[in-house]
Amino acid sequence: TFKVLQVADMHYADGRSTGCEDVLPEQVAGCSDLNTTAFLYRVIRAEDPDLVVFTGDNIFGADSTDAAKSMDAAIAPAITMNLRWAAVLGNHDQEGTLSREGVMRHLVGMKNTLSRFNPEGVEIDGFGNYNLEVGGVEGTLLANKSVLNLYFLDSGDRSTVWWIPGYGWIKASQQAWFKQTSLSLQKNYRNEEPRQKEPAPALAYFHIPLPEFSSFTASDFTGVKQESISSPSINSGFFTTMVEAGDVKAAFIGHDHINDFCGKLTGIQLCYAGGLGYHAYGKAGWSRRARVVSVQLEKTVSGEWQGVKSIKTWKRLDDQHLTTIDSEVLWNRGSNGRIMTEAEFRLGD
Amino acid sequence: TFKVLQVADMHYADGRSTGCEDVLPEQVAGCSDLNTTAFLYRVIRAEDPDLVVFTGDNIFGADSTDAAKSMDAAIAPAITMNLRWAAVLGNHDQEGTLSREGVMRHLVGMKNTLSRFNPEGVEIDGFGNYNLEVGGVEGTLLANKSVLNLYFLDSGDRSTVWWIPGYGWIKASQQAWFKQTSLSLQKNYRNEEPRQKEPAPALAYFHIPLPEFSSFTASDFTGVKQESISSPSINSGFFTTMVEAGDVKAAFIGHDHINDFCGKLTGIQLCYAGGLGYHAYGKAGWSRRARVVSVQLEKTVSGEWQGVKSIKTWKRLDDQHLTTIDSEVLWNRGSNGRIMTEAEFRLGD
Repeated sequence: TFKVLQVADMHYADGRSTGCEDVLPEQVAGCSDLNTTAFLYRVIRAEDPDLVVFTGDNIFGADSTDAAKSMDAAIAPAITMNLRWAAVLGNHDQEGTLSREGVMRHLVGMKNTLSRFNPEGVEIDGFGNYNLEVGGVEGTLLANKSVLNLYFLDSGDRSTVWWIPGYGWIKASQQAWFKQTSLSLQKNYRNEEPRQKEPAPALAYFHIPLPEFSSFTASDFTGVKQESISSPSINSGFFTTMVEAGDVKAAFIGHDHINDFCGKLTGIQLCYAGGLGYHAYGKAGWSRRARVVSVQLEKTVSGEWQGVKSIKTWKRLDDQHLTTIDSEVLWNRGSNGRIMTEAEFRLGD
Repeated sequence: TFKVLQVADMHYADGRSTGCEDVLPEQVAGCSDLNTTAFLYRVIRAEDPDLVVFTGDNIFGADSTDAAKSMDAAIAPAITMNLRWAAVLGNHDQEGTLSREGVMRHLVGMKNTLSRFNPEGVEIDGFGNYNLEVGGVEGTLLANKSVLNLYFLDSGDRSTVWWIPGYGWIKASQQAWFKQTSLSLQKNYRNEEPRQKEPAPALAYFHIPLPEFSSFTASDFTGVKQESISSPSINSGFFTTMVEAGDVKAAFIGHDHINDFCGKLTGIQLCYAGGLGYHAYGKAGWSRRARVVSVQLEKTVSGEWQGVKSIKTWKRLDDQHLTTIDSEVLWNRGSNGRIMTEAEFRLGD
């Protein structure tokens, strides 16, 4: 099992001196960024993840005196617990003393991080577009293959086109890099010994919802939708690009703190985490939360570990019992994960 | 003035032996591909364009005995009249004796063509993605600058993702190439002597409508919408990429033969041509047609020719008088063509 803890929208500022938003009247006194830190420690201890992914708005730049210090404090629990972690930018990380580029440069220089600045030798929009490969079990034939691929993308902050209002989006250059990376990983997985029949599944992490997050009605998803989907005002096609690539089984975002649902569209699960940070808007009485993804490997009859069998998810609430809610299977090998070959497609068309 | 004649959906097959679709009862006898040819000659003589653009479904492969011969016959009027021409693929061109790649290779080898196979040194989806630069008036300072840019893209045939039904789309790799090309052209136009304040306007030509063509109601456009918009079932974001790039003022397509409107969305005119071919579905009594785009240059008080001032369009009908209809201005310099600088944008945000 490989477990990823997603931490969305910490909105960290100056620590103890930074108050909480949207908590119950009796919780206001003494509530600060340190509550965010305390929850993060609790959920890390409870879940013991293999990787922590911070999906943006890690700090709330506008309220932070020193962006680098805020980021250090925000990420500290992962480092202290000696976990490996990765981060992408949200739309608020760059509002303090560091530019968007500066924040990402700071992140990639921090301890234990697997974050990267951007792919080398590629002209690409944004800061913090990279992928991670999760190897098979050591000592097995898949030890040197990536059985699970993780993509991290910078979904921007605001639109950079003056006559388009609203939030940023994942640009064509980023999508072209993603597509090429995905196809290359799929080719290696299938063609290099030991050859695999199907590509390895993948997960994508970024901050701002795609317009397709608006495709669901309450009966279509698990979790809640308590606010509108704050996607950009135009569709830049990343959902289509993921569908085309075929390996991404689920995309995980933040941005809308009081939405925490997962809904499935055209074979891809679109999942919110729900906000974790106390210095971020929320809903008083509705617990701050984090999303866990657990990836199970297949085991042959003879006991050999194989590729990924299933991907599950649940959320942990910052209540007295760290309650687990909304456990569900996001993907099972064989159920909908099969990629048809070109020949099969042509036959069926 | 620089004039482009757009020829959409000729659906050419075997010439005289290939009959007409959807003509009036009295027109059926003797009607064939040669009527398509005759109309093309008429409209070329009437308009004397500087460039003819064939926007796909140039031939109807399934009914063609020899795809290369059909293509030669279809394009012949442009060559005979000694015009320069460019072509993109539709969704039917490859249904005959040549593959999609084969059709495009044939097109780029034909006489007088400015078509190109694909950009060099770039991995790109599809066949026939290229751009053309239209230089300023000879003897003026702009003689060596491209005052008008034309983009040609392969919008595919059918979806290549088995669980997505319907038509193809412009992929991330094509969009990344388009975006880079556009930014590079804009940079040259603004930074190289004689420096220009605003980027040169651009036009895009491809076959299949973007989902954004469905954004209009009858009061929003000029022309008619007599059938539904046959765009792909998902949005691959090319409209957004064009908006981001900022130079494209109008996109011209075919595919839906009995739609011929232009509507403006977020600063970009989205225009159908209306079908030209007689061996293509149409509407009996509703004339086959072609779209003309006329680009005017600015002239200083001292009589020096400058960059593009305005872009106009109209359609020519294959009736007795080659009637001109739906004349309109697509773009005027200064009206909506101005690109704000990053600094201006930030100020206003």
